[in-house]
Amino acid sequence: MSKSSNHLVIMAGGVGSRFWPMSTSERPKQFIDVLGVGKSLLQLTYERFSGFSPENIWVVTNQKYVELVHQQLPEIPYGNILQEPCRRNTAPCIAYVSWRIKSKDPKANVVVTPSDHIVTDVEEFRRIIKLCMDFTQDSDAIVTLGMKPNRPETGYGYIKADLSVSSLRQKKIFRVDKFKEKPNLETAQEYIKESDYFWNAGIFIWSVSTIVNAFRVYQPAIAKIFENLMPVYGTVDEQQMINAVYPECENISVDYAIMERVEEIFVCPADFGWSDLGTWGSLQMQTKHDLYGNTLIGEKIEMYESHNCVVHTLQQKQVVIQGLDNYIVAEKDGVLLICKLSEEQRIRQFSGEG
Amino acid sequence: MSKSSNHLVIMAGGVGSRFWPMSTSERPKQFIDVLGVGKSLLQLTYERFSGFSPENIWVVTNQKYVELVHQQLPEIPYGNILQEPCRRNTAPCIAYVSWRIKSKDPKANVVVTPSDHIVTDVEEFRRIIKLCMDFTQDSDAIVTLGMKPNRPETGYGYIKADLSVSSLRQKKIFRVDKFKEKPNLETAQEYIKESDYFWNAGIFIWSVSTIVNAFRVYQPAIAKIFENLMPVYGTVDEQQMINAVYPECENISVDYAIMERVEEIFVCPADFGWSDLGTWGSLQMQTKHDLYGNTLIGEKIEMYESHNCVVHTLQQKQVVIQGLDNYIVAEKDGVLLICKLSEEQRIRQFSGEG
Repeated sequence: MSKSSNHLVIMAGGVGSRFWPMSTSERPKQFIDVLGVGKSLLQLTYERFSGFSPENIWVVTNQKYVELVHQQLPEIPYGNILQEPCRRNTAPCIAYVSWRIKSKDPKANVVVTPSDHIVTDVEEFRRIIKLCMDFTQDSDAIVTLGMKPNRPETGYGYIKADLSVSSLRQKKIFRVDKFKEKPNLETAQEYIKESDYFWNAGIFIWSVSTIVNAFRVYQPAIAKIFENLMPVYGTVDEQQMINAVYPECENISVDYAIMERVEEIFVCPADFGWSDLGTWGSLQMQTKHDLYGNTLIGEKIEMYESHNCVVHTLQQKQVVIQGLDNYIVAEKDGVLLICKLSEEQRIRQFSGEG
Repeated sequence: MSKSSNHLVIMAGGVGSRFWPMSTSERPKQFIDVLGVGKSLLQLTYERFSGFSPENIWVVTNQKYVELVHQQLPEIPYGNILQEPCRRNTAPCIAYVSWRIKSKDPKANVVVTPSDHIVTDVEEFRRIIKLCMDFTQDSDAIVTLGMKPNRPETGYGYIKADLSVSSLRQKKIFRVDKFKEKPNLETAQEYIKESDYFWNAGIFIWSVSTIVNAFRVYQPAIAKIFENLMPVYGTVDEQQMINAVYPECENISVDYAIMERVEEIFVCPADFGWSDLGTWGSLQMQTKHDLYGNTLIGEKIEMYESHNCVVHTLQQKQVVIQGLDNYIVAEKDGVLLICKLSEEQRIRQFSGEG
């Protein structure tokens, strides 16, 4: 993966409101040391990829987080931090960075990743990314990663693969049969009985010409906006022009705008201990527990007669908890949340930011 | 109560370890705004008494809390804050302040009070104190206040009154038959069936000559120590001498050292909404609840589906609690405690200060 035309795009514009109060709109969860390992999710994401030269690494984020990105990833050229003036979901974000990369390197081979997911088996992750980039290097394929599901998760979209078309690259990459929206529990239970359903991890691999062409075909309005800016990319006028035109983009996800529409789309099944860390519960599922099922992130947490709790403190906070089962306890700066894990979908409401 | 020889003694040397983390050895609960009213328990105690001239108000406390007392009660002359170099329970504390007052005003009539209790009916409280001080003004009586019990509390000592000797002062003050140690629940249930059992509130009224004489008779060793210092009270040598001799005093409560031994001892039954605020549970009992039995002390506390909790924050902390019944949630500076109310006797252990 040391090829000079390999590029990495990290999307870091999310607000992570379900992780309040740890994650706030001032400092969303990608900028937080969610796992208590001394590094933010963004920094862990950056480190997970290896072999990309810093000038080929791009971060797209909201304007208010640019300094946070720069502080956390000082190796990346400041000009590679692309600034969205407003939130328009993933399609405009990917379109912008794709044309920006194309203006510099028309032969770029690109992997696009969220900034706030976790991966536990980094070695396997790198193997899969290399496999996919080798594939898109000399094809017009769009590849998405499909996570082997281990539970009937209703919080993820699913990808149904066509396993009959298995001749591709050592039988590791398959055609997508269909994208499926987040299912209800009954449907999810059906999905995981089958071997051809995978979680959509939101990690994409493609050549820049492939994705740009896909936008031209399926999202001509968006394509036109960023095509028109070709003369200004990399110049002092870029930001001003982006600020002017970005709000005109439709607010639409890349899944809906592109992935579900294109023909040449593939899924690479993978199993590297992935979570989108969308909820406190997913944090509990993906991290180490104590003997009683408690996930304790913080340096001075004492638990007595407590089970299956997620406790998260960022500062040098001393926490003593007695007799608490199946709760989230999260504390940050001036805010404390205590909430049953089963009620965590209400956290947005509690936060007042939702 | 504007008589010039009326003196008030506030004992403020306690450490309040059962109220951790709100109360710490650095700042025990008498210096804390426990009720969330903008004033510490010490300040509320000071305000509860009216009609004492500041030069007749004395505070006895540990040396480490002198500045806290001075900050919170700036009206009191600095020299009236007596400093204990070490903790020796209430008998040496009261002996010291009694001889100190005697050296200045041999005819002093004195009320002694803890600094960390609460009283809800201040008007009735003042009426009772006046009644008792009028009584001790021209008698050799030692008077203690007896609180009308409303539950079989096992955390308090009891006083059995001799209601047959009822001729004293409008039948408001009675002879003490016996002091009773903290009872078990069964015994407490027996006590509250009777009309002659009262809680010992630790509030005493006597003339300074009476209590000094009582020490001479029942605690001659302690009496001798403070009698010997008569030449230095109020001089620059006082503190140095106290530091030298105070550690020699026996560690003993005034109840055990004096009250349970003297003959001329009386109890004044009273009912002015009193609590010694010894535990989080007592705070819940004595303060306003919301509709669901929650005692919420703090400015930004939101409760959802929660009942009978005590939540205490001192700072501008935002707290959101969902689905919690019968818990203490207390947060201060760098420390958070979540504990079942039923387990609050373990808080000392949790704190590491116990």
